Amino acid sequence: MATVRVIPLGGAGEIGKNCTVLEQGEDLIVVDVGLSFPHEEQYGVDIVVPDFSYLIENQHRIKGVFLTHAHEDHVGALSYLLREVDVPLYCTKLVRALVKMKLDERMRGFEPKIREVQPGDTVEVGSLKVEFVRVTHSIPETCALAIHTVHGVVLFTADFKFDFAPVDRAQTDLHRLIELGEEGVVLLMSDSTNVDRPGWGPSESEATQGLRSVFAAAPGRILVTMFSSNIHRMQQVVNCAHALGKKVAVAGRRMQQVFEIARNLEYAHIPRGTLIPIEDVGKYSASELVILLTGSQGEPMAALSQMSRAEYRWLKVAKGDTIVYSARPIPGNEGVIWRTINKLVQLGANVVTEAVAPIHVSGHAYRDEIKTMVNLTKPFYIAPVHGEPRHQKIFRELAQQMGHADHRIFTLANGDVLEIEDERAGVNGTVTAGEILIDQHGDVEVTLDVLNQRTRLAHDGILIVTVTVNAHDGTLGAPPKVQARGFSGGEELVEDIDDAIEEELVKLSSFELKETDYVRSVVTDTVRRMLNKDSRQRPEVVINVVPVKS
Amino acid sequence: MATVRVIPLGGAGEIGKNCTVLEQGEDLIVVDVGLSFPHEEQYGVDIVVPDFSYLIENQHRIKGVFLTHAHEDHVGALSYLLREVDVPLYCTKLVRALVKMKLDERMRGFEPKIREVQPGDTVEVGSLKVEFVRVTHSIPETCALAIHTVHGVVLFTADFKFDFAPVDRAQTDLHRLIELGEEGVVLLMSDSTNVDRPGWGPSESEATQGLRSVFAAAPGRILVTMFSSNIHRMQQVVNCAHALGKKVAVAGRRMQQVFEIARNLEYAHIPRGTLIPIEDVGKYSASELVILLTGSQGEPMAALSQMSRAEYRWLKVAKGDTIVYSARPIPGNEGVIWRTINKLVQLGANVVTEAVAPIHVSGHAYRDEIKTMVNLTKPFYIAPVHGEPRHQKIFRELAQQMGHADHRIFTLANGDVLEIEDERAGVNGTVTAGEILIDQHGDVEVTLDVLNQRTRLAHDGILIVTVTVNAHDGTLGAPPKVQARGFSGGEELVEDIDDAIEEELVKLSSFELKETDYVRSVVTDTVRRMLNKDSRQRPEVVINVVPVKS
Repeated sequence: MATVRVIPLGGAGEIGKNCTVLEQGEDLIVVDVGLSFPHEEQYGVDIVVPDFSYLIENQHRIKGVFLTHAHEDHVGALSYLLREVDVPLYCTKLVRALVKMKLDERMRGFEPKIREVQPGDTVEVGSLKVEFVRVTHSIPETCALAIHTVHGVVLFTADFKFDFAPVDRAQTDLHRLIELGEEGVVLLMSDSTNVDRPGWGPSESEATQGLRSVFAAAPGRILVTMFSSNIHRMQQVVNCAHALGKKVAVAGRRMQQVFEIARNLEYAHIPRGTLIPIEDVGKYSASELVILLTGSQGEPMAALSQMSRAEYRWLKVAKGDTIVYSARPIPGNEGVIWRTINKLVQLGANVVTEAVAPIHVSGHAYRDEIKTMVNLTKPFYIAPVHGEPRHQKIFRELAQQMGHADHRIFTLANGDVLEIEDERAGVNGTVTAGEILIDQHGDVEVTLDVLNQRTRLAHDGILIVTVTVNAHDGTLGAPPKVQARGFSGGEELVEDIDDAIEEELVKLSSFELKETDYVRSVVTDTVRRMLNKDSRQRPEVVINVVPVKS
Repeated sequence: MATVRVIPLGGAGEIGKNCTVLEQGEDLIVVDVGLSFPHEEQYGVDIVVPDFSYLIENQHRIKGVFLTHAHEDHVGALSYLLREVDVPLYCTKLVRALVKMKLDERMRGFEPKIREVQPGDTVEVGSLKVEFVRVTHSIPETCALAIHTVHGVVLFTADFKFDFAPVDRAQTDLHRLIELGEEGVVLLMSDSTNVDRPGWGPSESEATQGLRSVFAAAPGRILVTMFSSNIHRMQQVVNCAHALGKKVAVAGRRMQQVFEIARNLEYAHIPRGTLIPIEDVGKYSASELVILLTGSQGEPMAALSQMSRAEYRWLKVAKGDTIVYSARPIPGNEGVIWRTINKLVQLGANVVTEAVAPIHVSGHAYRDEIKTMVNLTKPFYIAPVHGEPRHQKIFRELAQQMGHADHRIFTLANGDVLEIEDERAGVNGTVTAGEILIDQHGDVEVTLDVLNQRTRLAHDGILIVTVTVNAHDGTLGAPPKVQARGFSGGEELVEDIDDAIEEELVKLSSFELKETDYVRSVVTDTVRRMLNKDSRQRPEVVINVVPVKS
């Protein structure tokens, strides 16, 4: 029988940029095409996307891209793939709408080939059948993917939790997961994000209780920040607002877009008269207002951050406002988030976080839910993904405790080729995989070279030395000039370096001055000597020795 | 009666760089001289210290500096003050030793005037009496300061918790705090770091249980990382190691220094034969070894980070090692800490965090402990410090719930002058206060200008354009040259800009070329046009137009 290959291009050993290749013989499909966010040392980077080299090389074999749900870490890199390879996308209605919205921004005029499916549907592509199985998560219509291969089902759990009181009443299709387990799951590719949390996570709908009590106690305006894709949470905010006779406005472009789509497609139900435009908040009294807003990760241009700087157009945060932080910081963002919150407190706001009231619930399975998934689907092989190495390690230990043999558990890294054959499975080689950093401007790549230069410039600044020499007579064309940017050595040192260079250059003969390389080495040595003498600064140094013809 | 003034120069509205001035008439004393750590957007900054302008201007009035305990955020900026003003320091023996150690590094040859006191001692300086009252914290010999003024006692709690089972058996002097409350505390300056944590914090000695069970279960080497000043924790690690017949080595220079001082002065008690030099770890079997090490905040040059990159000289982390993360991340450091931990997991280590086992305990009072402090000392006025605005706000609400009138609670910011008079107290004006950023190299300041330049360079990079013009005949001295660093526009765009500049310049008459400012404006416009046309990059642009004489 054909070998089945599973190759994560992103999302293995990390939380973010989920993208996995599955091959059966010559047929190739892709599960999810997500992005991740840069960490704080990736200067000037907007987003991070998978390296698609492998897909570009094998584009003729791609039968389709299957999307589990509409979160950025599962669909956010689509424009970067589709720009190279125009392949059909398979997804549910909500994913389609949100993907279209984002592609319209990044690939104006491009018409993606989207095939809409319903949870429960099965799609045949080449020799593979891909079945969409509904699971619960923090966005509606999330689907696990059961890929029927010659060796059994490869089951991608997608991001999931077992929520028995989901906000949209659409339960996980447990029945089908059990059936798949009985039919034979050869490999479980499972979400492992919350494997370090013991027990069973609370239902998303439990946030209602926290939100309701915070809303009831708030003396004035209520501002709720969350991920702009969290449609279930938005619904709960709307419900709580409506129950208390309050109006809801939405601040922040992305959240307005998502809210509008969710409403139009009836994934969110907004009682008549509840929604008001953000421009109109001034017409209502503080106690009537609930505002949904972007900025839960401290993004500098999001509504919440703008408000913290008193720069937001439609409202100014003031005493009496209650700000509800209904999200969890992505690790590393805590600093900027707390700085933002402190500014809001200084403006007079009361800030309510998860530590104070149960206003946030994770969308990912806790440890006992993960155990349940393993138990129900009875996989022969397991590969924990959607987790960092530390999560993958805990998952491995968990599976071992459940009786899984160590050699049937795979800790995959991006690029690993996991081959499943009749009697065995194992990692056999790697393909090109990695991260492509996308600049905050112009939708271009930040190369590793450029990032290293930025790091150096950020930490140490730059000195620019310009020396001109008359090529015909070997005299200085102008006095040498030293300029600094981001340099902590002080202006006086910059002048001293300038003087020292001039002093060295006037010692040179006209013959020596005509030798550009020699002049450069003299200048280099002088700069180095001066930096060593008067400071311990180590700036980037750019030396221009220009031979001038007259 | 004389006005008493309390002026925080640091530590009010922040956690870090604690430094407060107290004045009675002409007499001026300083409580603590601490530093803070830069946040992730303060590029190339090593530490942050208070602006001492006010102390320098009033240096003739300074009667002494009183130090509550030896943590960096209370003593770490001393060299920056003493360099300007050589004033006497009052502190206990351990603080003296640790301060001396740090001053020896930063001010070689300088002999600080240190007056050693014991907990319980009172020092008279001018018209003020300063009493050292023992409290419990994560470092031995922490003292609250009761400053006896004409208006009653101003009580600085210092960093405190009410730990009834402290590792060194030295309890908070509750008796004296109660007496002070009866004598009359006019103002309580209280730690508010953990005011958002309900209840009463666990005793430091509870970490022993967590550590002991982790140590007992560990199959091989045990590496424990913590703040290098956490002497109580070190003691517990040594105790647990000894109980299991293991050896202890210390990795990381700062921790070695602190450990040595604590041991020599008998603040730490090391059973004979337990301690081994880090150089000797290779001589012992894995199961015999416990290693204390620096790097709990992900500092790139600390021992833990070096190990994560397999660069540490004396040992390589491997399968079977257990790494115990016995600290809490400073907000904002989570990203780099988890990246470090993931690398260690990939090397095969098992990493144990507070989430998994009770191996870390905070040194700061929880909400009920803070309430107890307020209750025992019965202050007339309260000013929460050692907290961010969000903590100060919660503290204010807490005090109100305890019956304190709102106008007797002060939310101070750095520089605020709190005046206490016979019948009233209030903020009356401000003095110069702020943060001085110290560069990672050379012990010099990073000005706001330089920081802004670094931010720009980090995010957008730099283009350097060099144009030379012969001054006598108005011809180009050499082709224009464009160089880039940290620029994402690509090499081709750099060349195109170069070509475009040349194209524009050859159009100019010799008369125009002689006009440096005009040439500069042509080049500036051309660079701008090219950037707008082909990219959305916004680099810093340095344009050098050099008129050359031959």
